[in-house]
Amino acid sequence: MIDLLPHSVLIQTLSTLAGWQVCMDRSAIYKSFVFPDFNRAFSFMTSAALYAERHHHHPEWSNIFNRVDITLSSHDAGGVTQKDIDFARWIEIYLQNT
Amino acid sequence: MIDLLPHSVLIQTLSTLAGWQVCMDRSAIYKSFVFPDFNRAFSFMTSAALYAERHHHHPEWSNIFNRVDITLSSHDAGGVTQKDIDFARWIEIYLQNT
Amino acid sequence: MIDLLPHSVLIQTLSTLAGWQVCMDRSAIYKSFVFPDFNRAFSFMTSAALYAERHHHHPEWSNIFNRVDITLSSHDAGGVTQKDIDFARWIEIYLQNT
Amino acid sequence: MIDLLPHSVLIQTLSTLAGWQVCMDRSAIYKSFVFPDFNRAFSFMTSAALYAERHHHHPEWSNIFNRVDITLSSHDAGGVTQKDIDFARWIEIYLQNT
Repeated sequence: MIDLLPHSVLIQTLSTLAGWQVCMDRSAIYKSFVFPDFNRAFSFMTSAALYAERHHHHPEWSNIFNRVDITLSSHDAGGVTQKDIDFARWIEIYLQNT
Repeated sequence: MIDLLPHSVLIQTLSTLAGWQVCMDRSAIYKSFVFPDFNRAFSFMTSAALYAERHHHHPEWSNIFNRVDITLSSHDAGGVTQKDIDFARWIEIYLQNT
Repeated sequence: MIDLLPHSVLIQTLSTLAGWQVCMDRSAIYKSFVFPDFNRAFSFMTSAALYAERHHHHPEWSNIFNRVDITLSSHDAGGVTQKDIDFARWIEIYLQNT
Repeated sequence: MIDLLPHSVLIQTLSTLAGWQVCMDRSAIYKSFVFPDFNRAFSFMTSAALYAERHHHHPEWSNIFNRVDITLSSHDAGGVTQKDIDFARWIEIYLQNT
C-alpha cells in the first residue's frame, strides 16, 4: 500500500498544480475543468480513463456538457497519496499539450 | 423547443422504465448503474456519449469506478421532456442487449 | 443525397488541407496521423467518433499504437462530397487546437 | 520478453477461440467482428483500448461503421505469444457478456 502524503507536503505540492485544491470535507483533491464543448470534454475523459486503467487508479468525476469535475483520492490508503499527485500532474501536462 | 411532460404522464412513463426516478429537488430523472468493473462502466459511458452527440442531448453524470449515476433533464425546456425519456429508454434497451 | 465534388474542386480543396490526399485506387481521401502515444491516438479517435455520430458520417480508419490512418468517402454518393471535406477540416482544426 | 507460442500450441489454442485465425502472411492472429451499429462497434473498441492500456499490449485494428477487424501480435517477440491469446480470450468473454 502506498503512504498518505503528510499535509504539509500535500499543500506544497498542490501549489505547483494550478487550480487543484484539497476538498473541505474529506481527504481528497479536486479541480473543475471547462472545455469548448462536450466533444472535447469527453475525449479528455477518455484519455483520463485510459490513464486510470493503465495505472490502476481511478478518478471520481462528474460531467455536465463541457464541464468535468475530478476528485482524486486513494481509497485503500484513506486519503491523498503520490498516485493522486501523479494523476493530477499527468492531467495538467496532458491539457497543456492540447 | 420541446414541451415539458405533464407530471402524470412522466410518472406513468417512469413506471415502464425500471429504476428511473424523479429527482426530489428538481425537474429531472435519474438512475444509478453498477457494472462489473471500470472498463464496462466507461465503455457504457462512451456509448451514451455517442448517443448524446447524435441526439444533441447530454446527460449530467458521475462515475466512481464501476458505478455510473445519470441525471437527465432538458435544460432549454426547464424540466423533463420526451428527449429525456427517449434517452432513458435507449439506455435500458442498450443494457438489456449487453 | 449530397453531390460528388467535381475533381478539380476536390484537388483545389485538398490543397488547403495539409497532408490529405486522394486515394489512388478509389474515390476517397486519406491521411495518416502519428500521435505521441496510444492514449493520444485513441482519445483523438473518440473525438472523431463523436463527430461521426453527430454528423451521421463515419470514417474508415485503422490504428496501430500511436498511428491512425483515416479514409473518408461518402458511400451513398459513391465518392468524395462536401461531408468528407467538412470532416477532414474539422479534424485539422481539432488537432491544431490540441 | 515473452516467448512465442509454438505453432502446434497456437493452432490448438485457436480451436478454442471461435473465429480467430492465423494470418496467412505473417505471425499474427485476427478476427472480424460485426456489431449492430457504429455506437456498439466503437464502445467495444473503447473497452478493448482500456484493456490494451492496462495490459500494455495494443491491437492493430480497423473499423468501418459497424465492423471491427482486429489483428493481434507481440511485436517485441516477433509473433504470437500468450499475451495475444489472453487478449483474444478477453474479447470473446467480453462479447459473450454483452
